[in-house]
Amino acid sequence: MWDLTTTLDALNTKQLSSAELVQNLFERIDKYDPGLSAYIWVNRDEAMARADQFDNRRANGEVLPPLAGIPICVKDLFDIEGTPSTYGGRHYRSHIAKDTATAVQRLLQAGVIVIGKTNLHEYAYGTTTENPHYGNARNPWNRGKIAGGSSGGTSVAITAGLAFAGLGTDTGGSVRIPAALTGHAGLKPTYGLVSKFGVFPLANSLDHVGPMGKTVTDLALLLDAMAGFDPLDETSARTMSQSYVPQTVSHDKPLAGVRLGVPRQFFFDRCHSNVLQVISQALHQLERAGATLIELDIPLIHDVPQNQTIVISSEALDVHRSLLKEATLYGDDVRRRLEAGAEVSGADLVSAYRFRRQFKAGLREVFSKPVDLLVTPTTPLTATDIGQFKAHIKAHEVNVRAHLTRYTNPWNLSGLPALTVPCGTAADGLPVGLQLVGPAFAERKLLNLGAKVESVLPWTAVAPDYR
Amino acid sequence: MWDLTTTLDALNTKQLSSAELVQNLFERIDKYDPGLSAYIWVNRDEAMARADQFDNRRANGEVLPPLAGIPICVKDLFDIEGTPSTYGGRHYRSHIAKDTATAVQRLLQAGVIVIGKTNLHEYAYGTTTENPHYGNARNPWNRGKIAGGSSGGTSVAITAGLAFAGLGTDTGGSVRIPAALTGHAGLKPTYGLVSKFGVFPLANSLDHVGPMGKTVTDLALLLDAMAGFDPLDETSARTMSQSYVPQTVSHDKPLAGVRLGVPRQFFFDRCHSNVLQVISQALHQLERAGATLIELDIPLIHDVPQNQTIVISSEALDVHRSLLKEATLYGDDVRRRLEAGAEVSGADLVSAYRFRRQFKAGLREVFSKPVDLLVTPTTPLTATDIGQFKAHIKAHEVNVRAHLTRYTNPWNLSGLPALTVPCGTAADGLPVGLQLVGPAFAERKLLNLGAKVESVLPWTAVAPDYR
Repeated sequence: MWDLTTTLDALNTKQLSSAELVQNLFERIDKYDPGLSAYIWVNRDEAMARADQFDNRRANGEVLPPLAGIPICVKDLFDIEGTPSTYGGRHYRSHIAKDTATAVQRLLQAGVIVIGKTNLHEYAYGTTTENPHYGNARNPWNRGKIAGGSSGGTSVAITAGLAFAGLGTDTGGSVRIPAALTGHAGLKPTYGLVSKFGVFPLANSLDHVGPMGKTVTDLALLLDAMAGFDPLDETSARTMSQSYVPQTVSHDKPLAGVRLGVPRQFFFDRCHSNVLQVISQALHQLERAGATLIELDIPLIHDVPQNQTIVISSEALDVHRSLLKEATLYGDDVRRRLEAGAEVSGADLVSAYRFRRQFKAGLREVFSKPVDLLVTPTTPLTATDIGQFKAHIKAHEVNVRAHLTRYTNPWNLSGLPALTVPCGTAADGLPVGLQLVGPAFAERKLLNLGAKVESVLPWTAVAPDYR
Repeated sequence: MWDLTTTLDALNTKQLSSAELVQNLFERIDKYDPGLSAYIWVNRDEAMARADQFDNRRANGEVLPPLAGIPICVKDLFDIEGTPSTYGGRHYRSHIAKDTATAVQRLLQAGVIVIGKTNLHEYAYGTTTENPHYGNARNPWNRGKIAGGSSGGTSVAITAGLAFAGLGTDTGGSVRIPAALTGHAGLKPTYGLVSKFGVFPLANSLDHVGPMGKTVTDLALLLDAMAGFDPLDETSARTMSQSYVPQTVSHDKPLAGVRLGVPRQFFFDRCHSNVLQVISQALHQLERAGATLIELDIPLIHDVPQNQTIVISSEALDVHRSLLKEATLYGDDVRRRLEAGAEVSGADLVSAYRFRRQFKAGLREVFSKPVDLLVTPTTPLTATDIGQFKAHIKAHEVNVRAHLTRYTNPWNLSGLPALTVPCGTAADGLPVGLQLVGPAFAERKLLNLGAKVESVLPWTAVAPDYR
């Protein structure tokens, strides 16, 4: 399976047609998806019709938009007018969306073909995509393992070759966790950079829309099409990040002069040894490629988990208050998580919001020093078994579902952009992700350096059984 | 007792000295304050020394700052380095402040003399200034009546001739309510215009610092000295309002061409007939002075009280959490109010904050139409008896303490600037205030029009017994 750039080249040089691409994907979906639960709904007829249109226009020599004829998948948390939107929950099993999410709308304007809506953790409120209503998304590297979540379906589609790229959302790591556990690239942009209009909320002040794909350049292509102010989203930022311009990579020392901050405290503790081993090798490779590693501490980081929990549980309960009147329609884990939100007081939330302001101020200090990006593992574990609740890290027992967000959710609380790239496979044969974090609205720098990092790390795109 | 402008003229023309002014105030304080409880602490020696300094510099022909030698009082919620700050509570009975509030610092730089710290409702969390620790502030118009609160001490000082002007804070009406009930002018500026650094918080997202004085021009003189960005206050706005330039008032039709919105719904209901009568007369006078009255509705206004309560009780509990370990040190009403805050959930607060964003958006719509200001009564009642909990408005029994904020607290939730000017005395012989509300950061317009409104209304500055 090609990445977007290669696919666009192939379309533009007429090596193959958009219809062939789409047809091939649907054949693979028919063959593989029943064992993977990547998709909740596919858009076969419209996708084929749109592919034919682009092929005809291309044959007629028309000037086409930048992503014309590229098939992608979209997490089923995004509305597309007139098509089913379940949000992964039973309350919306027969729901047809009235609007189109701005992020999707902009990608459609850029020419993509949406081939279907992908599976997710129920209402995006979980990290495993074990969905009691639409099936457990299965990891293409080992189908007994979780794909991670909540945007697990998009990750499965990408790494099983059932889509070229896709859209996810990320409230505590929901783009980056499945990308890391299945072995592909994913970006949570700066808070406010991509509109959330038309996306079912989980926790509004933590929710982000993010691109998921095979390469960092693919993420950049999607981001450039989606980013920018949207009056329909009251959290949309007027600050623009600059467009991504891929830079020529010197193959000798592509990271010469790059200073990477390594926050050993917190981000390297409570981490499974099989992950740490791969991350250590990756850091050595980055050093060999010219990067300077700088050990540093992130102020207030140890208080992030409890404050993040307060914010997400209060904001999620607010969203779900009316749906909870039909509480039996939820799966057990999500219902319990929502009900636990009622234990949080308003004063706790005031305190958590104040903590967030202080945490953000501390991070501005970190990035005021000469550090280009921070680098951490994306997750402290590789993909766990479907149905597994506990794991052991040295002597400690951890709750898998909560623990998977440990390294990702600080960047939701802070709003800073965070990228994951695959950096190898662990001793258990499963993919490991490396997380890169930049200052606010520094997506261009993050993606440029991310592409260089990617160029010096072993790359694992589509899982072995699906190549 | 003169207003600030007259006093400045007298100082500048050497009709009297600053030392005489201060001396005279302390004589009045010695005589009247024991029966009024306006002051918690007076700054006699330093005030006299500072007055002498200004007199000497003035005698030497030095160029002095704009408010040089003017004595004012400051609510005891503001810190002044090295002097007592009780915040009206017992926990801080022996507390000495370490910093000086930015608002006070800027006034000191402008030349004022702080003659003392004034009484307030305990921790500013109430509307009556019945303070169990520092005495009940008494209304100079009738000492059996409340002065209103929470900045009641400043209002008593101004209207009993114990200060020329002063500082208050306003979280639900705490500048405007006592100003209305004692018969003087007070301004709650736009949220973020005046720094709150060094002011003990009640509810950070609703708290405002505001000037209190005899005339609108006096408020403008104080505001001009205080307003502007302060890096020490994270809620400080970078948007500046323009300086106030008093305009020449045409005595024929000073309000010709001015369009005043009258929101009859909500702001004129549940209002006592003795207040309504004075307000109606005032509106007639404004019309005779050329104003056009436009009836309009404020979107979402009926849901303001419950949402305001959620925000104030959550934010106040957050501030008081550690002080509540010594819960017996509180007066009953404030302790109960704080404890009730624990009943509010984080999800309720999320919903209230969302409501606030919608309410503010609705108000931007209101002011996008050709309306200069809104006009309402400042309070639905004149000053009630000290110790009075219930009042009757037609057939309805109301809780006095909560009801007093009905017309003022929407402007804390919205952050819009709101001014009260005295507009006459009611049938019970007590003052009534008229509230004028403007768009965000339109203080210049609000004060200019406010001065014209003031010029056509009967003016009641110092209470009869203290003239």
